[in-house]
Amino acid sequence: MNKEQLFEQIQNKKSFLCIGLDPVLNKIPKHLLKYNDPILEFNKQLIDATHDLCVAYKPNTAFYESRGVKGWETLVETWKHFPKDVFTIADAKRGDIGNTSAMYAEAFFNEESAAMSFDSITIAPYMGEDSVSPFLNHPNKWVILLALTSNSGSQDFQVKQSDDQKLYEQVITTSQKWATSDQMMYVVGATKAEEFQHIRQLAPEHFLLVPGVGAQGGSLRAVCQYGLNSQCGLLVNAARSIIYASDGLDFAEKAREEALLLQQEMEQILKAANLL
Amino acid sequence: MNKEQLFEQIQNKKSFLCIGLDPVLNKIPKHLLKYNDPILEFNKQLIDATHDLCVAYKPNTAFYESRGVKGWETLVETWKHFPKDVFTIADAKRGDIGNTSAMYAEAFFNEESAAMSFDSITIAPYMGEDSVSPFLNHPNKWVILLALTSNSGSQDFQVKQSDDQKLYEQVITTSQKWATSDQMMYVVGATKAEEFQHIRQLAPEHFLLVPGVGAQGGSLRAVCQYGLNSQCGLLVNAARSIIYASDGLDFAEKAREEALLLQQEMEQILKAANLL
Repeated sequence: MNKEQLFEQIQNKKSFLCIGLDPVLNKIPKHLLKYNDPILEFNKQLIDATHDLCVAYKPNTAFYESRGVKGWETLVETWKHFPKDVFTIADAKRGDIGNTSAMYAEAFFNEESAAMSFDSITIAPYMGEDSVSPFLNHPNKWVILLALTSNSGSQDFQVKQSDDQKLYEQVITTSQKWATSDQMMYVVGATKAEEFQHIRQLAPEHFLLVPGVGAQGGSLRAVCQYGLNSQCGLLVNAARSIIYASDGLDFAEKAREEALLLQQEMEQILKAANLL
Repeated sequence: MNKEQLFEQIQNKKSFLCIGLDPVLNKIPKHLLKYNDPILEFNKQLIDATHDLCVAYKPNTAFYESRGVKGWETLVETWKHFPKDVFTIADAKRGDIGNTSAMYAEAFFNEESAAMSFDSITIAPYMGEDSVSPFLNHPNKWVILLALTSNSGSQDFQVKQSDDQKLYEQVITTSQKWATSDQMMYVVGATKAEEFQHIRQLAPEHFLLVPGVGAQGGSLRAVCQYGLNSQCGLLVNAARSIIYASDGLDFAEKAREEALLLQQEMEQILKAANLL
């Protein structure tokens, strides 16, 4: 999905919600345990209940890998269940030397070899350009580069100042030499809302993937105040607040209710910004 | 495997060689394609031919993930084939917020859930302490943190200077507050031999995992000149120069010959340093 198509979906659905599919077996509703693959069933019902309210799904690979081969199968089958009109994000936070990153690109972008092909993948920038560029060789695929993350550990290195820029600012500035806003997005945590104004100056055209709304405490309004651009430019992720809205038979229905609240708030925000 | 046991293995085998198992289907000998899992067969024969000459094996997960579910199965089966006396490294370069890194730790350290349990995992430091600490909760398991990598992209961010330290130096200094040299190692590329003296001052007791000898052009002697410490303190990785030493029926034999050359050079180095 390219940038124009993504903005079109945002306008169609009046939403820039991304739903994080990060399921843990002992947290999903007990009645699903009777299924052959309870987590797949959980994901499928969540997707069926929410896909008209969100523009993206973001499974975090850790939650699948933790269950070994079986978990990887669940990830593939989950990918197969995504509707064609959603933007799909492999939240994998990979990154390695060039020839190895090329293999990761096969893993997440090449349906022939890996049986799945996400629209995008999250990448850690520590290893620099040749760790990122192999992903950009795949047409219409995106790199979502970690910039300023939502966790406490973001303060350890990401905000270190050198040459008048913090490390995460250098990541945003330097990586713009590697790809345009048609193939690159940045991860900026919602818990850092005060930084959005400045980040928008550094990357006015880019989409930002924003985790941390919901369970991690970030505010949607605060993020949008400075984060919106002329094509929306935001994908706001919520995971736990939606997928664990209920642990009963009604989990998908309750997930939809939570997603709807966010979609409605997003619709108001998009209208106020004349983006609909 | 703990630090003393690792040094014991180094002394037993007179080697600090780590072999990188990074197989690509179209590069392995053609006669293996008749097997149900050609890459597993390739790995098994390599392991059988070299395990007395090396102290560690390091499969890079990208090469397995690129083949989807089947690849993940190969990784698990390869892990099962490792002899008990080798140190095993999941070269996965993971790292995420705390609760997610905990899932990655399950994926690579918890045999019950993931059917494999490596001794160690490589981690990207960009997301800071809480992205690393969940791995350290597993007793006798190791984090191998990226410090100064062997690729050209290492110059993009790792050498940025702030507070009188380069980023990779800050990674080494700061992370020593998170774990001792009994649970933490650092990745330092062999292509940066001139930096080893300085790195040894920052981390005198730590093991360093050193990729880049062989195909990437790093020199073993240059690395050892400053890199050795009183417990050896080095695991030197070679991958392509060993595993692709021949593409014929004799590939395992030729791999052994390449590994033997490195082991013999290492034995001389260890003797000269009075470590045997």
